[in-house]
Amino acid sequence: MTVDVVALLRAELGDRVDVSPAALTAARADKSGHAAPGTPLAVVHAASVADVQAVMRIATATRTPVVPRGAGTGLAGGANTGGGEISLSVRAMDRVLEVRADDLLAVVEPGILNADLNALLEPHGVWWAPDPASRAISTVGGNIATGAGGLLCAKYGVVRDAVLGVDLVLADGRLLHLGHRSVKGVTGLDLTSLVIGSEGILGVVVGATLKLRRLVAGERVTLTALFDGVRSAAVASAAVTASGIQPAVMELMDATSLAAVHRLLSLAAPPEGAAQLTIQTDGPAAADEARAIAGVLRGAGGRVAVAADEVEGESLLAVRRALHPAMETLGTTLIEDVSVPRSALPAMFDAIAGIERRYGLVIPTVAHAGDGNLHPNFVFEGSEVPEVVWSAAEDLFRAALDLGGTLTGEHGIGVLKRRWLADELGDDQWRLQRDIARVFDPLGILNPGKVFEL
Amino acid sequence: MTVDVVALLRAELGDRVDVSPAALTAARADKSGHAAPGTPLAVVHAASVADVQAVMRIATATRTPVVPRGAGTGLAGGANTGGGEISLSVRAMDRVLEVRADDLLAVVEPGILNADLNALLEPHGVWWAPDPASRAISTVGGNIATGAGGLLCAKYGVVRDAVLGVDLVLADGRLLHLGHRSVKGVTGLDLTSLVIGSEGILGVVVGATLKLRRLVAGERVTLTALFDGVRSAAVASAAVTASGIQPAVMELMDATSLAAVHRLLSLAAPPEGAAQLTIQTDGPAAADEARAIAGVLRGAGGRVAVAADEVEGESLLAVRRALHPAMETLGTTLIEDVSVPRSALPAMFDAIAGIERRYGLVIPTVAHAGDGNLHPNFVFEGSEVPEVVWSAAEDLFRAALDLGGTLTGEHGIGVLKRRWLADELGDDQWRLQRDIARVFDPLGILNPGKVFEL
Repeated sequence: MTVDVVALLRAELGDRVDVSPAALTAARADKSGHAAPGTPLAVVHAASVADVQAVMRIATATRTPVVPRGAGTGLAGGANTGGGEISLSVRAMDRVLEVRADDLLAVVEPGILNADLNALLEPHGVWWAPDPASRAISTVGGNIATGAGGLLCAKYGVVRDAVLGVDLVLADGRLLHLGHRSVKGVTGLDLTSLVIGSEGILGVVVGATLKLRRLVAGERVTLTALFDGVRSAAVASAAVTASGIQPAVMELMDATSLAAVHRLLSLAAPPEGAAQLTIQTDGPAAADEARAIAGVLRGAGGRVAVAADEVEGESLLAVRRALHPAMETLGTTLIEDVSVPRSALPAMFDAIAGIERRYGLVIPTVAHAGDGNLHPNFVFEGSEVPEVVWSAAEDLFRAALDLGGTLTGEHGIGVLKRRWLADELGDDQWRLQRDIARVFDPLGILNPGKVFEL
Repeated sequence: MTVDVVALLRAELGDRVDVSPAALTAARADKSGHAAPGTPLAVVHAASVADVQAVMRIATATRTPVVPRGAGTGLAGGANTGGGEISLSVRAMDRVLEVRADDLLAVVEPGILNADLNALLEPHGVWWAPDPASRAISTVGGNIATGAGGLLCAKYGVVRDAVLGVDLVLADGRLLHLGHRSVKGVTGLDLTSLVIGSEGILGVVVGATLKLRRLVAGERVTLTALFDGVRSAAVASAAVTASGIQPAVMELMDATSLAAVHRLLSLAAPPEGAAQLTIQTDGPAAADEARAIAGVLRGAGGRVAVAADEVEGESLLAVRRALHPAMETLGTTLIEDVSVPRSALPAMFDAIAGIERRYGLVIPTVAHAGDGNLHPNFVFEGSEVPEVVWSAAEDLFRAALDLGGTLTGEHGIGVLKRRWLADELGDDQWRLQRDIARVFDPLGILNPGKVFEL
């Protein structure tokens, strides 16, 4: 059986079928720190929609599981490929097929990197707004498959707000064109939105029509504010949101994460226990808005520093961007991704502090404070998540749900959060969602075991 | 059987079950001009989620079709209730349960009118952006069920961009809570988006968590520009979009519709053949943007008039808002709703002119030019759409699809566009969508015959 499938793939796809040990090992893991058990059958480097269709036809004929893959930068194990499975990479399908600045849309293949796309769009005076922290290394197709968020979401939206249509290859190899090219369109059910964030269980995204924005005119103003603790920083960020001024970026770093980054970048150590907000405004009113925000922050007890220019502003944001490498210096990291209504940020930080006390853990946490999305980092030794970390993570999820929040703001369920999915959805909705997935994939060969434990 | 269902409803819902001839007749029609054949069994005026659940349990037990209904202002026949069917009205469920200006969300019942909601939100400094032309008479639940658009969509989005979660009663009476309260959330499949625009075939929307915006600060500036024909007005509107300035409102009226409104409002007749753009800018840069837009319009051959103040601006927009009553003075109207990429507006007007010539019809047309959504009006005598109008409408749909557009930008499929749905979706996607609907409603009792001809 195993030999047959690879031979069938080879017959149709030639040397785009890769069984090198390096490729097979790489396909087992994403950036979550988790790897699937066993060794994949093959990695297929699809070069075209027809290649993807060919793989899916063979997979259907042979009942072989297929795991779609972009750049493998996911944080929930969604692209991890295990024994007996085909890793179907669309990374090589990276062309921009059309840019229409007048219609504010672009048609792209799924494998292009988010940052590469935006570099190509810039001369046209437009951009694609979703900006996950991984934007330099993650693909547009992967951004769609996870429903990615990022730093700019409160002002400029998430992926769901920025996709007009998706081309999808079904489990049996048929190609569907979902969505539309017009600003408005309500013909039938909105399957485009259903595919966004579906983590490869409904089909393989082989193309997308993206909704673009004009480049934002005017300057960017960046400021930081130091607080004596994470709770006061969270209260200050909620006060900024409640003030009605909309920053482009509002990031929060707690004391542990801030200190770790300062060490990594050889910066002077921050005051003991200090947490920091980093805020950026943009657009024609950027300077006025930054002044008003500085007033709110000072009123909330913050020590405010405003960048003299955009270069200094970028260096302030670079501190936040160095979080992941800084965490790696501490050990293996399980990055969580709960999201709560913005006013609940202080209460969520209280809950995290309680979990730290109860389990004797330190949980360095950063937050996209502008939209209420927190990334608590569980740091441990070795490659297996210890049971105590899972127990603490479970408490974290329950705390977020109790505050009206969600398990995952932007990383997805993958394998890492499967066991808590029904807690958020309820059993009835969980079953309904699984039954919808089966309409797309009746044989259960598309990314099986992800999202739903089938 | 008929007697049994009404008796069962009465036993649970008492005098909220309405079988008065006036109510039954009203339930047969929406504002499309179309009415369902036969007489409904009953109209149920649900007062609570429990009422809706009770109706659906009885409907499932007795296999009785149910047609959900808000204010009945739809334009595609989606809420029309025929013989043997229950009309389930949620119009009386009109409470605002929660307003959180700090989290920019509101929790509402489905029956509240869009304009009433916004009047309640205004003192909180927030608004719900979707603004269908029917906003004074249409419900939030109906806006969600149709995926409504409106005048402000290019700048402020459609309903799909403004709903965080939906409470849905399934065909068998179970209640699901879909979506979330946080800005970000990617837990499982995005069923909230699937319900938006689903026209009552997946369940009954009994509550919604809405995403709000801060009220826009600054003034509103309104201007009009007269052109010697609809094509030059369309070219000018595309030039405005291409200039990168984003108006809040950009409406186009062709010569026939403009003249009809001027007659209705007893205004001086516009020049023979003249078409008009009406544009409004808002926000802190409104005046600068209006000046820049005026320049673009003059460069495109427009005679520009800028309103002296907001009162005069409203009177200019009132001309556009009087379109529907003006059409009613001409005869019975079938309002179409095609949408195309904005750059294709001139070509779409060319296509409409061709259809007028081919069929010997006059098709007064207005467009939300800012987002490419056109409303061609077929005007005829009597209550039945003549075959020649259907033939012309079919040509209209094909022209829109050929230009990369869609059958319906904001009104939905209902009964009036069912026969063209597969032309846009393709047979594979049509079947997939229908199969998804069956997962929600295996007995086919929810708004049967709408959207999909089952």
